[in-house]
Amino acid sequence: MRFELIHEDKTTGARVGKLYTEHGVIDTPCFMPVGTKATVKGLSPEEVRATGAQILLSNTYHLYLRPGHELIERAGGLHKFMNWDGAILTDSGGFQVFSLSSLRKITEDGVEFNSFIDGSRHFFSPEKSMEVQRALGSDIVMAFDECTSPDIDHDKAAAAMERTLRWLDRCSKYKLKSHQTLFPIVQGNVFADLREESAKRTIPYCTCGVAIGGLSVGEPPETMYSMLDVLQPLLPKEQPHYLMGVGTADYIVEGVARGVDMFDCVLPTRIARNGTAMVREGFLTIRNAPYAEDFTPLDATCDCYACKGYTRAYIRHLIKSDEIMGGRLLSIHNVRFLERLAAEIRQAILEDRYDAFRKEFMAQYKG
Amino acid sequence: MRFELIHEDKTTGARVGKLYTEHGVIDTPCFMPVGTKATVKGLSPEEVRATGAQILLSNTYHLYLRPGHELIERAGGLHKFMNWDGAILTDSGGFQVFSLSSLRKITEDGVEFNSFIDGSRHFFSPEKSMEVQRALGSDIVMAFDECTSPDIDHDKAAAAMERTLRWLDRCSKYKLKSHQTLFPIVQGNVFADLREESAKRTIPYCTCGVAIGGLSVGEPPETMYSMLDVLQPLLPKEQPHYLMGVGTADYIVEGVARGVDMFDCVLPTRIARNGTAMVREGFLTIRNAPYAEDFTPLDATCDCYACKGYTRAYIRHLIKSDEIMGGRLLSIHNVRFLERLAAEIRQAILEDRYDAFRKEFMAQYKG
Repeated sequence: MRFELIHEDKTTGARVGKLYTEHGVIDTPCFMPVGTKATVKGLSPEEVRATGAQILLSNTYHLYLRPGHELIERAGGLHKFMNWDGAILTDSGGFQVFSLSSLRKITEDGVEFNSFIDGSRHFFSPEKSMEVQRALGSDIVMAFDECTSPDIDHDKAAAAMERTLRWLDRCSKYKLKSHQTLFPIVQGNVFADLREESAKRTIPYCTCGVAIGGLSVGEPPETMYSMLDVLQPLLPKEQPHYLMGVGTADYIVEGVARGVDMFDCVLPTRIARNGTAMVREGFLTIRNAPYAEDFTPLDATCDCYACKGYTRAYIRHLIKSDEIMGGRLLSIHNVRFLERLAAEIRQAILEDRYDAFRKEFMAQYKG
Repeated sequence: MRFELIHEDKTTGARVGKLYTEHGVIDTPCFMPVGTKATVKGLSPEEVRATGAQILLSNTYHLYLRPGHELIERAGGLHKFMNWDGAILTDSGGFQVFSLSSLRKITEDGVEFNSFIDGSRHFFSPEKSMEVQRALGSDIVMAFDECTSPDIDHDKAAAAMERTLRWLDRCSKYKLKSHQTLFPIVQGNVFADLREESAKRTIPYCTCGVAIGGLSVGEPPETMYSMLDVLQPLLPKEQPHYLMGVGTADYIVEGVARGVDMFDCVLPTRIARNGTAMVREGFLTIRNAPYAEDFTPLDATCDCYACKGYTRAYIRHLIKSDEIMGGRLLSIHNVRFLERLAAEIRQAILEDRYDAFRKEFMAQYKG
């Protein structure tokens, strides 16, 4: 895997690049749809591909518990299992172990936790996370880190950062498959000095990319932006920067200005199933009454399958009737919305007008 | 609309024909997938089309209640509303009024019933059913009939049959759109004499097709077959015969031998969402443990999207994980299974070997 930096914006930290993987080239900045359980909820791989997505994220924690990473390895790996020939990034399982599992027990060795499916007891360590991700065969493997919430104090954040660095060292010693690359994760919570230290001590482990973890977890946007401002000059220019779990349009636009190249989020597909469309102005709650007889598309400027063939009135009817096709059409639209946004962002950067693009976008956005 | 009888099997009552509608030609015998609420659950119109389906059924009762037939008419009719350019048959709403609604009050004029959505009070009459189906703009409009269960006595069945005939007369006087055709429904419960009388008195109202109602509602298969045996010599040869609500492979194969040309059923898509695949031998409960590591397709002989790209193990994983894509893949397969069966049936009839086909099929079938 290698990253090619193609262009840097003159007035912001925005960059355009290409990430070459065994499963295709990824144009950055990019948005990665999430296929938690080896499927982007409701969408076929062809539909995901048609949105413009070149890489998707899948969740190690869920796949480890069901159907099991060994089963997926016997199936020929995650790509083959789910019939997706594009690139795949897997998370480490860390975030889910910390956020979804009850009765956690954290030690220096790793984390003991209960399965969300049947309550059975499991243990994740840096080595175990690597073993599972190796079996899944993802292109980008995330380091196993200790995730913290934004309301802890400096001492606790520092301790978690130190542990994350020790765990990173252990992850880095695990032998992955030849096509796999490990992305270390910078932590440090909302403390500028810790972010700086974490970045400096993480960089030696970065071979082809680096992630920023622990943001967009409840802190104010300004705090997230200020952390990104701290990191931007520190992170290696010749590697892609991945801001984990971020996927609203405004965060993407602002993140790109601060040197972020990769984003992922469940938001576009999750709100789709609840009947919400993403548009340039923010969000359209399609289940609301004003759309009952609105025979126009979700977004007249959009070229997606949903906007080409269906009206707001029909999609509202499907959502109100709990029909699967409603969430499917909105998911296609929302992912396509973010993929189109990423393409527009790349174009604006290439034309050295990213700052103007960002200002115009943010002035219009009411999300 | 017109029906062309192309070939009659030499030894059974099976026939091959073509039904010409404003929304395409339908090869018969045919299977019609069900799109109750203006969507075949989980499938796009393109996916439905790819199964080979040329006509689908939609439910008047559900669409009347939500989003409302007048809204659909303003949207340009049901075809445009749901983005389906093939033919559509709508039922009369009668069956649902009798089976889904509580607090029914049946009079000679019609049926008063409660909405399954909000309990609000509504009234369906022959004229109202025609008005709703006219607004929906379906190609085939079903007469409003009185549906009965198979455990009533001869007197009650006779009374319901008489009322169905009187209601048919009222339906026949309602002016539909120029592309629409009314299909009368033969009733008579499980009584041969009533079926015979119903057929004879219904036929004068048949212009381009006739339906057989009130079967496959709980009676033994032999009873259904004997009713079809009564009707076969009576129904007009030059018109298609539609056996309402029937859609298991064995019933279709046996129905065709008794002169049935059209079938519909929610079964293939309903059992799909519960994790069951339809195969030549009957049913495959894909959520069962033996398929956990079965990396073969649902059906090695099938050419559907699901069988071309996905394994039993993957589909089982999706179903076990409550992932929408599981029901979607199984729905595609199950509808394609019945469409392929219909195509094989037509071929066997054209080659005058339907009796042998039927015997071979039934010997293999364990459903």
